[in-house]
Amino acid sequence: MRRTLSISRSFILLAVVSCQIVEAARKPNFVVIFCDDLGYGDLGCFGHPTIQTPYLDRMAAEGQKWTNFYVGASVCTPSRAALLTGRYPIRNGMMSAKRRVLFPDSQGGIPASEVTIAELLKSQGYATAAVGKWHLGHLPQFLPTAHGFDTYWGIPYSNDMDSQKGFPGYRQMAKKDSNYVAPIEQFNVPIVHDTEVIERPADQHTITRRYMQKAIEFIHQHQDEPFFIYLAHSLPHIPLYAGDEFLGNSRRGLFGDVIEEIDAGVGSILATLKDLGLAENTIVVFTSDNGPWLTFDTHGGSAGLLRDGKGTTFEGGMREPTIFWGPGHVKPTVQREMGATMDLLPTFCSLAGFDPPNDRLLDGYDLSSLLLGNTTQSPRDRMFYWREEELYAVRVGPWKAHFITQGCYGREPKREVHDPPQLYHLEHDPAEEYNLAELHSEEIAKIKSIAAEHMKSIQKMENQLTK
Amino acid sequence: MRRTLSISRSFILLAVVSCQIVEAARKPNFVVIFCDDLGYGDLGCFGHPTIQTPYLDRMAAEGQKWTNFYVGASVCTPSRAALLTGRYPIRNGMMSAKRRVLFPDSQGGIPASEVTIAELLKSQGYATAAVGKWHLGHLPQFLPTAHGFDTYWGIPYSNDMDSQKGFPGYRQMAKKDSNYVAPIEQFNVPIVHDTEVIERPADQHTITRRYMQKAIEFIHQHQDEPFFIYLAHSLPHIPLYAGDEFLGNSRRGLFGDVIEEIDAGVGSILATLKDLGLAENTIVVFTSDNGPWLTFDTHGGSAGLLRDGKGTTFEGGMREPTIFWGPGHVKPTVQREMGATMDLLPTFCSLAGFDPPNDRLLDGYDLSSLLLGNTTQSPRDRMFYWREEELYAVRVGPWKAHFITQGCYGREPKREVHDPPQLYHLEHDPAEEYNLAELHSEEIAKIKSIAAEHMKSIQKMENQLTK
Repeated sequence: MRRTLSISRSFILLAVVSCQIVEAARKPNFVVIFCDDLGYGDLGCFGHPTIQTPYLDRMAAEGQKWTNFYVGASVCTPSRAALLTGRYPIRNGMMSAKRRVLFPDSQGGIPASEVTIAELLKSQGYATAAVGKWHLGHLPQFLPTAHGFDTYWGIPYSNDMDSQKGFPGYRQMAKKDSNYVAPIEQFNVPIVHDTEVIERPADQHTITRRYMQKAIEFIHQHQDEPFFIYLAHSLPHIPLYAGDEFLGNSRRGLFGDVIEEIDAGVGSILATLKDLGLAENTIVVFTSDNGPWLTFDTHGGSAGLLRDGKGTTFEGGMREPTIFWGPGHVKPTVQREMGATMDLLPTFCSLAGFDPPNDRLLDGYDLSSLLLGNTTQSPRDRMFYWREEELYAVRVGPWKAHFITQGCYGREPKREVHDPPQLYHLEHDPAEEYNLAELHSEEIAKIKSIAAEHMKSIQKMENQLTK
Repeated sequence: MRRTLSISRSFILLAVVSCQIVEAARKPNFVVIFCDDLGYGDLGCFGHPTIQTPYLDRMAAEGQKWTNFYVGASVCTPSRAALLTGRYPIRNGMMSAKRRVLFPDSQGGIPASEVTIAELLKSQGYATAAVGKWHLGHLPQFLPTAHGFDTYWGIPYSNDMDSQKGFPGYRQMAKKDSNYVAPIEQFNVPIVHDTEVIERPADQHTITRRYMQKAIEFIHQHQDEPFFIYLAHSLPHIPLYAGDEFLGNSRRGLFGDVIEEIDAGVGSILATLKDLGLAENTIVVFTSDNGPWLTFDTHGGSAGLLRDGKGTTFEGGMREPTIFWGPGHVKPTVQREMGATMDLLPTFCSLAGFDPPNDRLLDGYDLSSLLLGNTTQSPRDRMFYWREEELYAVRVGPWKAHFITQGCYGREPKREVHDPPQLYHLEHDPAEEYNLAELHSEEIAKIKSIAAEHMKSIQKMENQLTK
């Protein structure tokens, strides 16, 4: 009896010590790899027949491949705002009808009142870096270093901006040649380091490799403290460029070269994490800002079986090929539950063991239980598809109602209001082909009520995109 | 010096003995699992977001996932003839303009003069079984047992035939309900064992499970001799039926239930091969007869990013999600080279160590070097897309020219002749969206010359489908 008690006491003592060790354990590192205009169907593991993505395929097999993962908007600026703030961009002035994204002459950007993932993690002792495309304001007060990032290195807006005269039209050339490479001088975009322009025009041939290298350098430098890296590739947004090692290699032409270079970069980052013994305590997320830009023929990507692409509120515009990887945390599976980039903020807070801000309305849900394999049901059961300053569509469970539709610019661009709304069952009909509005008015009523509740929560901020 | 010689002699002796052992080794077993109307995009590993196919996904990861694998025709009867004979069905009278497939009142079938894979393997000592849908003639002289199979068990034609009056129209019901299950009595199709009808109407609720069980029984019975099993599922051709264990389980509705039951069956077959120690010497091929039947809304499948579906010569009609598995033979990779069901005949001959027939023109290529990983380039560089009695399109390398197009019946059914032909680069543009005919007349000229050469080789046989 004494002996049993003694064992029990030792066991309890051991358990207490273990808990303390766990509590004292380093917070997990986070790496978000965010592509630009990558379509749902552009990776091997999401069904592309000719693009080779062995590293992403392996990442998906070792982690969670998410097949119902959304972005907060179907174009660059608002989608990025959504990811970093955990809120629909209509809430922070980063979404507008007149100008859909920021331009080099814009005077606005992400408001100081917003709280980013980087600010939250920094306050918890994280080293934070933004590498790549920013597109949330290029004036100093809007740059990453003013929003929670210790450092920034990248092109501050889209790689097709600062366009110069006297060059062939990209669209015309893209139509003729899948392998067309535009002169670097045509797009006189800068590279900014923290707040200083250090190169102009950016040498975009090497931009994907250099982004990857910056991320790897940061991992090496901060391997002894928790870190957060937001690596936002400038590509495969047009104009397309690939490094010498990749140019001409893919069966898919230049677009494939670009994806295969990004894929290899992901492989290098995961290998670095493994080599440094950090893999067990790092979560890597791979996704993109919006669907493929279909107006550029083969220089744009593919949404696979999903309808339409970038700029639209069809699934092809806002559902992205997404992978979560983290050998010490993420339970390998194909995850068919819903998630969104806005969920990263509360999920990272949860995984790092602190509460998200409670002084504002967040649109994100904590996905950590799904990632850890502790549940099979997502806390996210709904998605609001905003376009410009209107709520175009709403998904609740498998049902999606389109109150307004508009195809991608250049392709079926007509805005149409639907009453009753179009209704699709996204699990039976992911391609949004079979409108069931006449048969399921009860689902429409339910979605309308949820949409009305959502609208009540919207307090529009000062428009940043038209400043 | 003597010692060295002695070692060399021993080594040579050992090598000779090894070679003899290899030569005497059992010929590999072959299992072909052939679905009906499965689309390119209907498996998880080919990008479907809601259908779960964990066993096929693992089969693909352990084997070769083929992304450019074709069938010989875009509807049932001619596609099946192509697989079993290694020849375009126009060569053996199994393709017709008036009737595209065989019907219960048909008097024709696969000619006795044709040589099937089963006949060839049987002549080499293989035990041979056909399980499932036949559709190459239901009169005794056309049944599997008259064409090289020791045994047959299955529905001899499509599962929607022998339709009875007084039931709701399937198309109308399918449009309303993804989970609609038709009464078994509506389709009074028989199950034939060898040449006898043993059940009518076939209980289609259990048909997928029973096919799988028959295949597994045959493996058990013939584990000590080389065997060939042709397991041709009746599903997911409509009407859809799933077993109790699967009904209502899939997020994709009844169509998903069906695929998930087929997937589990594949898992059981591979597990049986492993359990019996046969996996190392068995090659399993999974594919389908043609693309998805798009006229049945959510009761039909999805071609993923490919254009159109069943019945057409677009990629969605004739490119199939294909997996080769064989742990002792097949080198795991994603195979992006071209292959076709017609290649199975010469490939199996090669792997079993004998020559294919030389008294007739075969359209298949030996893919064994690609499967074994001894080469990276397919011997197949071309594909001829026949529809009815006309050559509609030709692929040579990445280029495909459409001389005639016609969408799937019920959807854009208009036949159009194109001069110049439409020209697509299938590797850059797998969805056949961007016609480059005006820019690449040299490719059209090349394809025209190859098409002309092919046409010269065609000697039409007596039409079997209109008998």
